[in-house]
Amino acid sequence: MVRSKKRIAPLRGFRLAGIAAGIKKASDNGPAPLDLGAIVANTPSPAAVVLTRNRVCAAPVTLCRSRIRNGLAQAVLVNSGNANAATGPQGMADARALSAAFAQQLGIRTGDVLPCSTGVIGVPLPRARMEAAMPELATALSLKAPSYKDAKAFSEAILTTDQGPKVAEYSFAAGKASYRVVAIAKGAGMIHPNMATTLAFLLTDAPIASGDLRATLRAATEVTFNRISVDGDTSTNDTIAALASPEGRPLRARALNTFEEATRQALGDVAEMIVGDGEGAKHVAEIRVRGARSDGDALKVARTIATSNLVKTAMHGQDPNWGRIAGAAGRAGVAFDQNALSIRIGSTWVFEHGQNVMDAKRERAASRTMAKARYVIEVHLGDARKSKGSAHYLTCDLGHDYVSCNADYRS
Amino acid sequence: MVRSKKRIAPLRGFRLAGIAAGIKKASDNGPAPLDLGAIVANTPSPAAVVLTRNRVCAAPVTLCRSRIRNGLAQAVLVNSGNANAATGPQGMADARALSAAFAQQLGIRTGDVLPCSTGVIGVPLPRARMEAAMPELATALSLKAPSYKDAKAFSEAILTTDQGPKVAEYSFAAGKASYRVVAIAKGAGMIHPNMATTLAFLLTDAPIASGDLRATLRAATEVTFNRISVDGDTSTNDTIAALASPEGRPLRARALNTFEEATRQALGDVAEMIVGDGEGAKHVAEIRVRGARSDGDALKVARTIATSNLVKTAMHGQDPNWGRIAGAAGRAGVAFDQNALSIRIGSTWVFEHGQNVMDAKRERAASRTMAKARYVIEVHLGDARKSKGSAHYLTCDLGHDYVSCNADYRS
Repeated sequence: MVRSKKRIAPLRGFRLAGIAAGIKKASDNGPAPLDLGAIVANTPSPAAVVLTRNRVCAAPVTLCRSRIRNGLAQAVLVNSGNANAATGPQGMADARALSAAFAQQLGIRTGDVLPCSTGVIGVPLPRARMEAAMPELATALSLKAPSYKDAKAFSEAILTTDQGPKVAEYSFAAGKASYRVVAIAKGAGMIHPNMATTLAFLLTDAPIASGDLRATLRAATEVTFNRISVDGDTSTNDTIAALASPEGRPLRARALNTFEEATRQALGDVAEMIVGDGEGAKHVAEIRVRGARSDGDALKVARTIATSNLVKTAMHGQDPNWGRIAGAAGRAGVAFDQNALSIRIGSTWVFEHGQNVMDAKRERAASRTMAKARYVIEVHLGDARKSKGSAHYLTCDLGHDYVSCNADYRS
Repeated sequence: MVRSKKRIAPLRGFRLAGIAAGIKKASDNGPAPLDLGAIVANTPSPAAVVLTRNRVCAAPVTLCRSRIRNGLAQAVLVNSGNANAATGPQGMADARALSAAFAQQLGIRTGDVLPCSTGVIGVPLPRARMEAAMPELATALSLKAPSYKDAKAFSEAILTTDQGPKVAEYSFAAGKASYRVVAIAKGAGMIHPNMATTLAFLLTDAPIASGDLRATLRAATEVTFNRISVDGDTSTNDTIAALASPEGRPLRARALNTFEEATRQALGDVAEMIVGDGEGAKHVAEIRVRGARSDGDALKVARTIATSNLVKTAMHGQDPNWGRIAGAAGRAGVAFDQNALSIRIGSTWVFEHGQNVMDAKRERAASRTMAKARYVIEVHLGDARKSKGSAHYLTCDLGHDYVSCNADYRS
């Protein structure tokens, strides 16, 4: 399995495009921003989705939930600039009509289109303007010679408050064949005036049966997108969608394992880009918990530390404040012996077996670690040789820029 | 039941004191700060405590847990400036020795002393200095004519990062007798370099049996201190202790109800002072959830809204951002119909039956409400006439001062 460092080249069986449909406002004198994107497969293909569990969910999320039931899809249609959430029956009618207009242009089934929206909530979609843009989108998708620019345009069209596109690609061999897994995502914490949605799309030219794709996507999401914390809120529109090739024999067990690993890596990479793009974030920490009674216990502790505002502000101040880490671990609802608790920042133990061991030298070393863009905080709840439960969680610092993003501007 | 607006006068059966023992550093040229306080009852008295559930807990918390088993206590001994947490066996030995030195000075049993500490964690107590201060503390407690100044000194001696003392008093009649309930608390979110503890002390001259006192304290804590959020973290030292009069016949059922109500009010008042004293907080919002299937469901939703950083930053920006409130409600893990969700800020409905109803006029009205020091955000999950589940939660805004308090200074 090899990570590609290059820009995303065209993927056999798929076409991507991104255009400016006038959903987002253009900045003064700037070019019209890309805000409508699509991915189309040659034929209806194995597909899977992971959707927000938020009870307040957008019309396109409801449509995706219903359309994925047969395990097939041929296209995703994504707009940024408007989330089509909290828009009632009108929002549902808009989402249906736009899927239909798009499907008609391409000559595919409306039920094979997975719609996604991200942007301001509580405002109806500019439906007429978007319908008028469908021929241009169809043309962009039907170009004779697809190029890396198509994936670039798509990855830009789905952005909202992101500082830039988020893409990752891995290739792997299965017998004599070679396959690719491409992940394209957007998301950057939550920002004014509303919540920023996480969207991610996973494409592969490997032949993966629908059930395997669903299982792989869910398992990979659990250890990637479900292990990051920017500010702990989830949005009305969060969607991760995967499409695989419908052609060829399904991969055998060993090759399927490699595909699963490639999926985890690709989603893990874009998930980490989202944490690093957190509002005002300057530092990413991987919280590693070891020595727990179970992986579930370790995950609870890791999540509680990763979502603690006190830990996140200490990260911002580059302050090796083990007291806040220990305090967060202690309130995670997990039983452990406080006299076995140890904490390491980078390679420096600052708290061992329930006691402060941070002298001036260790404090300097730990602070130097915390000045880095990425580092590891390791928390042992007990003897890691005896208690094998472990988990990881990615988090970012919380500083003035976060408050500025979220409080200082008005809607 | 009457709320007293006056300073806390001496309470029959109890003596209070606060002195400067040199645990806190004095500011340049300033007077030595009060940092050692005590409350002593005339005899061993009915007592109850509610202690932090944090797995990482301080030595005095462990001692309180063991000493309260018989339902009796005669004194609380409180120091600020040092939490005696994460201090290992030495911390336990220090806490025991200081209780013993204090008890010896007063001629009471060591097992009847409930110790509490708050301040920096991971640093041993300055035991010798504190032992040397015990005679002065005993003298302050044995003054012939107790005055309101004693309660004032005690309420100041327990403070750490608080902007000021937090006291409340209610009086109530039971038959021909009149009784008082006094609450004295400290706590102000969490602050650098470590976590600020919540401490609260409830005293009454009413004769309350130990079991009734415990039940009352627990029930009142549940709807007061367990319904406030400054930053969601709990400390290693949180303690609420109550002492009642051992003299006289226990109150009858009706009078006991009045005592319970007075306890709820007194603890509610000081809990609200703690929220208002949150680091940099300028606004307190009461989140009221109605129309839930159960009170438990309502509480989950209220707590999720109250602890959302996005809601708290919107409060700071005085931005009536219903999308963040709806999004937080939706991820609380509670089932409800999003088309029944309605949100009111003060008297202005901004979101009704799943749809945005905020026009420019309503936005101005809601913003004006959010400029106030205290206001109500009401969230209806369903028809409040049919679904009777409800709950409240107090929260405060999150602004730059919070980040400054918690990140900008180094230990």
